[in-house]
Amino acid sequence: MSTPTTFLPDGVNTCEERVAWARDRRDQSLAKVEPKLEGIPSELPQNSQGLAQVVLTPREIEITEKYSVTELLALLKGRKISVEEVTRAFLRRAALAQAATNCLTELLWDQAIARAKELDSLPEPKGMLFGLPISTKEHHGMVGPNVTTHASFVAWIGKPHGSNLLYDTLWEQGCVFYARTTQPQWIMQLETDSVVYGRTVHPSNNKLSPGGSSGGEGAMLGMRASILGVGGDIGGSIRCPAAHVGVYGFKPTLKRISVMGARAMMVGKETLVSTPGPMSVERDALELFMQAAVSTKPWLIDPSLTPLPWTPHQFSKPLKVAVMWWDGVVQPHPPMTRALKEVADACRKAGMEVVDWDAVPLDHAKGWEIITGLFFPDGGEEAIKRAEEVGEPILPLTRLVVHDQPNMKHLTQHELWDLCRRRDEYRVEYARAWREATAADGREIDVILCPPNFGAATPHNQSRYWGYTSHWNVLDWPGAVFPVTHVSIEKDPIDTSYVPKNEEDKFVYEMYKPEVFVDMPVSLQVVARRNEDEKVLAALKLIEQAMGRP
Amino acid sequence: MSTPTTFLPDGVNTCEERVAWARDRRDQSLAKVEPKLEGIPSELPQNSQGLAQVVLTPREIEITEKYSVTELLALLKGRKISVEEVTRAFLRRAALAQAATNCLTELLWDQAIARAKELDSLPEPKGMLFGLPISTKEHHGMVGPNVTTHASFVAWIGKPHGSNLLYDTLWEQGCVFYARTTQPQWIMQLETDSVVYGRTVHPSNNKLSPGGSSGGEGAMLGMRASILGVGGDIGGSIRCPAAHVGVYGFKPTLKRISVMGARAMMVGKETLVSTPGPMSVERDALELFMQAAVSTKPWLIDPSLTPLPWTPHQFSKPLKVAVMWWDGVVQPHPPMTRALKEVADACRKAGMEVVDWDAVPLDHAKGWEIITGLFFPDGGEEAIKRAEEVGEPILPLTRLVVHDQPNMKHLTQHELWDLCRRRDEYRVEYARAWREATAADGREIDVILCPPNFGAATPHNQSRYWGYTSHWNVLDWPGAVFPVTHVSIEKDPIDTSYVPKNEEDKFVYEMYKPEVFVDMPVSLQVVARRNEDEKVLAALKLIEQAMGRP
Repeated sequence: MSTPTTFLPDGVNTCEERVAWARDRRDQSLAKVEPKLEGIPSELPQNSQGLAQVVLTPREIEITEKYSVTELLALLKGRKISVEEVTRAFLRRAALAQAATNCLTELLWDQAIARAKELDSLPEPKGMLFGLPISTKEHHGMVGPNVTTHASFVAWIGKPHGSNLLYDTLWEQGCVFYARTTQPQWIMQLETDSVVYGRTVHPSNNKLSPGGSSGGEGAMLGMRASILGVGGDIGGSIRCPAAHVGVYGFKPTLKRISVMGARAMMVGKETLVSTPGPMSVERDALELFMQAAVSTKPWLIDPSLTPLPWTPHQFSKPLKVAVMWWDGVVQPHPPMTRALKEVADACRKAGMEVVDWDAVPLDHAKGWEIITGLFFPDGGEEAIKRAEEVGEPILPLTRLVVHDQPNMKHLTQHELWDLCRRRDEYRVEYARAWREATAADGREIDVILCPPNFGAATPHNQSRYWGYTSHWNVLDWPGAVFPVTHVSIEKDPIDTSYVPKNEEDKFVYEMYKPEVFVDMPVSLQVVARRNEDEKVLAALKLIEQAMGRP
Repeated sequence: MSTPTTFLPDGVNTCEERVAWARDRRDQSLAKVEPKLEGIPSELPQNSQGLAQVVLTPREIEITEKYSVTELLALLKGRKISVEEVTRAFLRRAALAQAATNCLTELLWDQAIARAKELDSLPEPKGMLFGLPISTKEHHGMVGPNVTTHASFVAWIGKPHGSNLLYDTLWEQGCVFYARTTQPQWIMQLETDSVVYGRTVHPSNNKLSPGGSSGGEGAMLGMRASILGVGGDIGGSIRCPAAHVGVYGFKPTLKRISVMGARAMMVGKETLVSTPGPMSVERDALELFMQAAVSTKPWLIDPSLTPLPWTPHQFSKPLKVAVMWWDGVVQPHPPMTRALKEVADACRKAGMEVVDWDAVPLDHAKGWEIITGLFFPDGGEEAIKRAEEVGEPILPLTRLVVHDQPNMKHLTQHELWDLCRRRDEYRVEYARAWREATAADGREIDVILCPPNFGAATPHNQSRYWGYTSHWNVLDWPGAVFPVTHVSIEKDPIDTSYVPKNEEDKFVYEMYKPEVFVDMPVSLQVVARRNEDEKVLAALKLIEQAMGRP
């Protein structure tokens, strides 16, 4: 039996018809929830974090809130709890998250429960992720039959699309896929707004964004409707939403994890690509995810991968941390700077060496100029054509990336090669700066500690500057984000003496008002050189231990 | 003091003037040779291999012929012989090779002797390559001041150009650079003919080609004017000349060795790139070279490199060798098939498992179609413009690659992405075939044994089909060539029953006449999957041992 070219029924053609079909499909998947969700107020509160107490059972709350990934896996593997019970709890909480934040494209009710029953029926638990519910970003695809994946292109709504190498690996390791999550139009915003589903909002404040592009994941994790999810990152799309909702997120070096099988535009473009990576409520789950992802030697199937087994890093000396207080382009908001100070102090107190990372001479603006040229080296032609085919309107933040960036244009091949040459030279320069910083005092820096964004979760449509995350995509350096504190009206007043250095800096400066951001999670980022992925996660652990965490 | 933009004097502008300047510069470098070469006949013999006995001293012959790389290094490090004496011997033999084969762009007489004296003056020998003369392909560049590098572009003659990361590393390891070698026009032929210097010929038969593009290296090694040289390979340019002159050559996986600093066209193009690699009279010197090249962790300087230390491979079982008798496109000449049989028999006798690698269902023609599109995705525009600037004529074999390939055209970005997508899918297909071949009998193949070319060294201008080497560039699989036998009129008659399968096959079939190729070295190739570089060299050793070699 051959696969159809579309799942759309006859008569579904226009943008509106396609969107209605997609939303209906999502709604039908949610209608499966049993027992139905009850107690959701008709007018949602600004902060949805209290809803679980009203809507879910105490047992569901226990399952979804009490355990870390590691703890839940131990219970599952020890058969102390059934996969089905865990799965049902996360399914219902995911449906609640959808109601509160608009974070789902599809709830995999039947599929997840069937999978859970299958795992429960095994004589022995097997796999590193046995029974663990994992939420996933829609455009990656999904295991199983009758999968449709649109990557937030209206033109691709209803298009059949199968699994991908990463999900096959996680599946082999025994996980349960139960929810597919939203991403913005063309997956190219640091927020999550699409023509297909509209806007995904922050679970703690619906006037703010959970970030993007893995913003559906962000909202799910922020509401603990997921404890381990898969995002993807080409300019910050894992780290930004993880930071905004106050969970952990990790963007590995490219080619550690395969993108083989995912649905994407501009397939074959090599100048800059995205990588999947984990988002989790638990730090150690980032490493578990990476171990699982490379456990099957995926490079034997996808030969573009780097054949590096996951090898946990051990430091032989106290950590040397370089703090990047700002990137020389846009000054972070006061809570970010406070968080940096707090963590730097904790590191110093724990006996680490803490130095400054001076980004100014390294010209991060050049990195931003390069990457904004590399995102759409065809000036967005392919994406725009696909939108025009079905009359999909271009949303404001998409327009910003595709149309309003002066460096985003349709390049000739020679112009593009020249831009890649500049990118490569920039990478070499940055590597040199690292080595020279080492030479100054004879001891190598281990990691850079920096903000993952200019501020905490932003009001909608304000995420214009990506430099704090995208810089590490230009360099292809791995980066992990972790929660540090929350925005405080008392501790984080406006710095009234600050004079913005440029237009973007002014925009960001004027955005900050403590009362807008109050109580939002404030996260930081740890980065190291290309392929030092294990080092990033090992350093993150030491830094958190310095902060008094386990 | 700033570097000038050109070393060309006023009045040197036209193609002819530039070429004359380059040849004069080469000749001046050769004029330094002391004592002068005497005894070279005014009319060169067809086979130059007897000239050394006439022209060189017994001591020079001993130094250049008696020792392997390993043995010579032991003598040098043991201070049993001075670096200067070794250097002078190779310098004079290189000058002889130039007289016989036209293989040099520059003899580094003064620089090499100064370097030798410096090394001799050290209290202790240091470096993995202490005192070893290494010959180098011109376009890579060179250490030292006043270096000019043209990469066989007339327009670049006289252009200042410095060193490169690989040569800096070899230099750190104590080598002596003494000769820079020829490459064909635009470095894109499997022979070596350029407007700048004309044709490089085979040292054993000047009616044949030493191959290309590292054909100057081939000629040098074939005459033992070098025992370790550096070539570069994007479609066979290391393996073809090494095979044609009967020495060892190794094309590593991309990104094991840096190309940073080399002079090249289309900088920033990522679709397909070249890699430097070793050519040597000694098998074990290939591994020594690789160890030296990665010894300094060059990935900390060139972050595009894969951070894999060189880790010699150990087999735990007898080797499993898959023999590819032909590629399904062009039938190899009879001596190549005989060599395959001989080596396969030897492997079997040594207890290895020998199976067939059936290339026909793997459609190597598709690989050839993809790579010929990727060589010049701008249809050669950049190169042609650079030639037209100075009136450089396009030579027949260059024309073949740039103009006469149906797949070589100026692609749009979207067409190029699509071609890269096809390339990636082809790589995945090939990897799948490997895994499935494994599954058939439950044991994994270790390496493929195959011809490195359709035949031995070809008559000039006949190297049209590159598939036997370029296929492994499409896949980015490492490959090593090694000498097996020589063409024999008795053993290698024409297969008169063969019916060519296509036009290219017919061209190649009709080329073969035993008397044209007689006594030419016949080499084979060992390949393994991407990044299995160490495995290739370990398997080569076992295969040679099976052949009764040390």
